[in-house]
Amino acid sequence: MSHLFNSVAIIGKAVKFSDPAVGRTIKQVANLLQGHKLRVAVDANAAEFLNRPDYPPNDIKTLGETCDLAIVVGGDGTMLSAARAFADYTIPLVGINQGRLGFLADITPDTLTDRLAEILRGHFLMEERFLLHATILRDGDCIAESNAFNDVIVQKWNTARMIEFDTFVNDRFINQQRSDGLIVSTPTGSTAYALSGGGPLLHPTLNAIALVPICPHTLSNRPIVVNGECRISIFLIDCNTDQAQLACDGQASFALREGDHIHIRKKETPVRLIHPACHDHFELLRAKLGWG
Amino acid sequence: MSHLFNSVAIIGKAVKFSDPAVGRTIKQVANLLQGHKLRVAVDANAAEFLNRPDYPPNDIKTLGETCDLAIVVGGDGTMLSAARAFADYTIPLVGINQGRLGFLADITPDTLTDRLAEILRGHFLMEERFLLHATILRDGDCIAESNAFNDVIVQKWNTARMIEFDTFVNDRFINQQRSDGLIVSTPTGSTAYALSGGGPLLHPTLNAIALVPICPHTLSNRPIVVNGECRISIFLIDCNTDQAQLACDGQASFALREGDHIHIRKKETPVRLIHPACHDHFELLRAKLGWG
Amino acid sequence: MSHLFNSVAIIGKAVKFSDPAVGRTIKQVANLLQGHKLRVAVDANAAEFLNRPDYPPNDIKTLGETCDLAIVVGGDGTMLSAARAFADYTIPLVGINQGRLGFLADITPDTLTDRLAEILRGHFLMEERFLLHATILRDGDCIAESNAFNDVIVQKWNTARMIEFDTFVNDRFINQQRSDGLIVSTPTGSTAYALSGGGPLLHPTLNAIALVPICPHTLSNRPIVVNGECRISIFLIDCNTDQAQLACDGQASFALREGDHIHIRKKETPVRLIHPACHDHFELLRAKLGWG
Amino acid sequence: MSHLFNSVAIIGKAVKFSDPAVGRTIKQVANLLQGHKLRVAVDANAAEFLNRPDYPPNDIKTLGETCDLAIVVGGDGTMLSAARAFADYTIPLVGINQGRLGFLADITPDTLTDRLAEILRGHFLMEERFLLHATILRDGDCIAESNAFNDVIVQKWNTARMIEFDTFVNDRFINQQRSDGLIVSTPTGSTAYALSGGGPLLHPTLNAIALVPICPHTLSNRPIVVNGECRISIFLIDCNTDQAQLACDGQASFALREGDHIHIRKKETPVRLIHPACHDHFELLRAKLGWG
Repeated sequence: MSHLFNSVAIIGKAVKFSDPAVGRTIKQVANLLQGHKLRVAVDANAAEFLNRPDYPPNDIKTLGETCDLAIVVGGDGTMLSAARAFADYTIPLVGINQGRLGFLADITPDTLTDRLAEILRGHFLMEERFLLHATILRDGDCIAESNAFNDVIVQKWNTARMIEFDTFVNDRFINQQRSDGLIVSTPTGSTAYALSGGGPLLHPTLNAIALVPICPHTLSNRPIVVNGECRISIFLIDCNTDQAQLACDGQASFALREGDHIHIRKKETPVRLIHPACHDHFELLRAKLGWG
Repeated sequence: MSHLFNSVAIIGKAVKFSDPAVGRTIKQVANLLQGHKLRVAVDANAAEFLNRPDYPPNDIKTLGETCDLAIVVGGDGTMLSAARAFADYTIPLVGINQGRLGFLADITPDTLTDRLAEILRGHFLMEERFLLHATILRDGDCIAESNAFNDVIVQKWNTARMIEFDTFVNDRFINQQRSDGLIVSTPTGSTAYALSGGGPLLHPTLNAIALVPICPHTLSNRPIVVNGECRISIFLIDCNTDQAQLACDGQASFALREGDHIHIRKKETPVRLIHPACHDHFELLRAKLGWG
Repeated sequence: MSHLFNSVAIIGKAVKFSDPAVGRTIKQVANLLQGHKLRVAVDANAAEFLNRPDYPPNDIKTLGETCDLAIVVGGDGTMLSAARAFADYTIPLVGINQGRLGFLADITPDTLTDRLAEILRGHFLMEERFLLHATILRDGDCIAESNAFNDVIVQKWNTARMIEFDTFVNDRFINQQRSDGLIVSTPTGSTAYALSGGGPLLHPTLNAIALVPICPHTLSNRPIVVNGECRISIFLIDCNTDQAQLACDGQASFALREGDHIHIRKKETPVRLIHPACHDHFELLRAKLGWG
Repeated sequence: MSHLFNSVAIIGKAVKFSDPAVGRTIKQVANLLQGHKLRVAVDANAAEFLNRPDYPPNDIKTLGETCDLAIVVGGDGTMLSAARAFADYTIPLVGINQGRLGFLADITPDTLTDRLAEILRGHFLMEERFLLHATILRDGDCIAESNAFNDVIVQKWNTARMIEFDTFVNDRFINQQRSDGLIVSTPTGSTAYALSGGGPLLHPTLNAIALVPICPHTLSNRPIVVNGECRISIFLIDCNTDQAQLACDGQASFALREGDHIHIRKKETPVRLIHPACHDHFELLRAKLGWG
């Protein structure tokens, strides 16, 4: 009998958070998948949680090349890491959340058995989203690069002083700004930090990028939404050495200095998310934002 | 000798505003066009300003069908009316502003001769933007419809009480909201009333629509940006008769009542704007918003 | 036996809202007060709800002069009306809410018996708040005046066009503003419309007035908080006749025209609110704003 | 002949900024004061700029006890330092700004001779403002304390993660908040960082303190304004060691950790500012915020 999915990866929350409930859910998922007679391969975190010789740890490259579904157990943060880790692979991700529903990890342990069975027999919602790719240029050399699923943030760091920078879209000058920083957000990230910074909610499938200033000195420096294909460039004019930073999803970070150029653009390979068929983004928003 | 444009329409600001400077500019434009040996046809407003037997008034239909360029003399408000009037025609619009530069009417009388010569010989920036089309359904019947270039606004009217309504995007429920109203804005309108209401700036060529609540009772009712192809529906739940209104570009308006459905979607025929080759949208933004 | 309160007024929600639950609560309050052997006098609305010959309707003047406590049955809206009606009297108000707790009417019918008993025996929290008094001057004559407990709002009316006005504080020019209007709010009103307009929360006992622009054209026109003793003046520069309005608490309203001066200042006689001893303003805020 | 002021202190901008224009202005001020036959004493910075044996450096204590006017040469930042330095003295401050007018340093070098002459003969505007005093308690011990003229800020530091804290006013719980931090601002500080964070403008003489959340996770966590006499307490619930910080005026800072209590209240001794008689705070606001 042929399956839609043959080989499934299990990705665990970083072990350092040492959440025993995550371990229990990973075991449950592994058992469910074996019950469905599927090949199961796990990443290093899931392997450590499982701690069984038949589940050796696999690197991301192996999982991305050999699996056709990744089940991510943790929460939205784990989904962000997984989306960045699998940036170069086409493997779709499905997220299991330990706490209350997340925007990305939208299956809870109590409904796991049913939801997973539905997904494995092909009853689901597949959605394509996109990552951002950021590059830092210093004196003409690329000194760092990273992907981001929520946002690339250029921000003051370790200082109370604002930073000053120029922003360009497709090499066209937008403005010079003094602020605590700039959030460059995907639609996925528009419900995260960008929202706290005063940015708009972007529909998850909109091909657009939001530029949201953080506490700008000039009050008319408002959020700007541009086409998802645009190239964003940020040029740091005034900040002391190591008093600015680039952060991707609030997880990976790089020290910046005056004169650095940051280039940000959409990554070509999309992120494929698998949701339960009943998934409704605005229902999540209503619940999480307390609408109505 | 063949021309890029053969027949040019001149569209005047509504005569009721009785601005003599507009009359002078219309005469200047007419003379310039004749100097270029072009056929010139004028609308009713321009005809009244010119008041000459060789410039009889033409209706919009004739102008839209027979001209290949429309020069609009007035300001951004006149451009909004012209864009709605020519909604079903492909004729491109170029705007002459009497006062300081507008976002849409971006040629001033003092540079008119040079800019127009450049445009007539094919040196310009052509941009496609879109209109919204709004329909009001009452008891299943369409009781009114209108186009809008900036925004369709559903708002309280003649009352201090908030109105209450449901919003749907592609028939999917977004939220129930109590507020002074909702601004449904094109990218073009994102620098207008939507900005005052707290909405983001949308790049003019972004294919997106912003939904901006006006003074919402629930503080988490934030602006939402959706794909330009989405169908927006608003269902009026609670408002006294004639205490809500639909306004298009703040110019055309219709009384609403409880139970009315408003459907809004992008109009298929685009608006073609012709700008001087040196046009820079963000330079206008920087000047008008006092950035930097 | 001497009482803290001897004669108690019952004030009912406007009968036009015809809410039968209000009638039941008014009867309950009347019976409770009689059980405490207190003299009871009712206003016209309460009389109509009670519909008994031993409860004839009294005018506000009589109630204000002869009673030493007013029990207001309805909701925050009824409390706003009552506070304005008793503006010239020292009688303290206590509010019974039919629906969920209000900011002003903070006793619910189910706890009414206990709370009222506590209050009658002197166990309560007394708080002084203030009203605003607004005067409209046209051609030097006072054409209207009114009190407000939440806010005095000068706003566009029956038009999509913004209005334009100058604002002065203690005769000192603040700014010229084009917007949908200006909310002049007491601390009491800072949780109402002013909050939707982007104003700050003012602690209820702060002696301050907030000026909150509604959808201002200039993005740096931010809310301003001034001392409660300040005289606020608004001078209407540009609006068509009857396309601006002054509203007090969203309940009383007056048509304005170009050239009108509006003077607003704190009313000297305070409003005395009686709350249950357990009253906690920030607990109400946390519940109503969904904090935490 | 008796003078209003007999002994005048000159306070210089920190020498590390090495601004030669500051040196020139300090010399000009010293000469002007000597021309008025006044005793002149200078602080360490001004002494270094002057570099003359007849102007030895004095400590703040000596200046505060022996002088009856302090002329502060630099900008708003220098005024902030001076106001904190003289927190325990009654000496009034007047500020000379090198660049464009500041909110606190509102005399420019080109009008210095006239303005200073006016002030010395008693023609000026005297204004009382207040400082905040912040104390950090760790395990019951006071580990640091500082004054602030603009604001006391508790903020995340050296991390992309939000911090979590409880806020109390007069020991009453306000809310639990997850955000980038909280700005506790005086009216003086309401035109500074608090404004960028979305706070209201407070009239400079209002006896009030604003609590402005920085990028709060909960969108309804809005700025709150409380009476100037209130005691504000902040209790850090969740932050990694040294990943939160307390900053006073963005100039003095202290590392915080989970469990720290921060107590903030108005300092009793006011700051006395001397402005030119023509000083108009709202004129400054109009110029700096681009109103009208």
